[in-house]
Amino acid sequence: IKSKPPPWEQIGSSFVHHYYKMFDTDRGQLASLYVSMRHLDFQGKKAIMDKLNVSSCRCHPTAKPTDHQPTLDQCIASMVVGQLKADNDHIMGFHQCFILKHIGDAWVCTNDMFRLAIHNFG
Amino acid sequence: IKSKPPPWEQIGSSFVHHYYKMFDTDRGQLASLYVSMRHLDFQGKKAIMDKLNVSSCRCHPTAKPTDHQPTLDQCIASMVVGQLKADNDHIMGFHQCFILKHIGDAWVCTNDMFRLAIHNFG
Repeated sequence: IKSKPPPWEQIGSSFVHHYYKMFDTDRGQLASLYVSMRHLDFQGKKAIMDKLNVSSCRCHPTAKPTDHQPTLDQCIASMVVGQLKADNDHIMGFHQCFILKHIGDAWVCTNDMFRLAIHNFG
Repeated sequence: IKSKPPPWEQIGSSFVHHYYKMFDTDRGQLASLYVSMRHLDFQGKKAIMDKLNVSSCRCHPTAKPTDHQPTLDQCIASMVVGQLKADNDHIMGFHQCFILKHIGDAWVCTNDMFRLAIHNFG
């Protein structure tokens, strides 16, 4: 009998699934998942949306595997290893980390770190 | 003139540098960087050290690039994309995420997520 995954794993998985589905189909709605981040060079919903819309138009992310952990501050940290496929381009690996926090009645993303997986083995 | 990096970047970079140096040269001391994590399947300093000592004996990590962000709860989230070189083995990419928190008079690691970068492009 497989036991039910812990709550942070359910919440983290749901968020990640929802995020990439929205990214792929209706990117304009992604802003609703973020709260504005203070103290960051790259901050605010508008800046985030500009970045998301410009930097990677029409790519299709798949996310696996993902790891989720609860933090001491009742947040959830999620780490994603995934692949991006642009329409006429190669498949590229990427890594992304989210920190999710329960604010009001929803889990929102307070931090988002993204890197393409370009390893230089030279 | 290059401006001084923000504090979370200085702290995150120092931690990551220190962590991998210790990992490579004196792994037994790594426990001092962690606080025990509640609610995790894999928890406690002893379990962490057992895992670190068993799973990857004699490998030499290099970490670059790294990203650091402050969180709403005064923590620092660090994402690392790096490479591991075991003594007689291939170079492998890895991703690792840390959450650092200021407890007492030190920055300690409260969360650590690690994955080897094995992308299946099949």
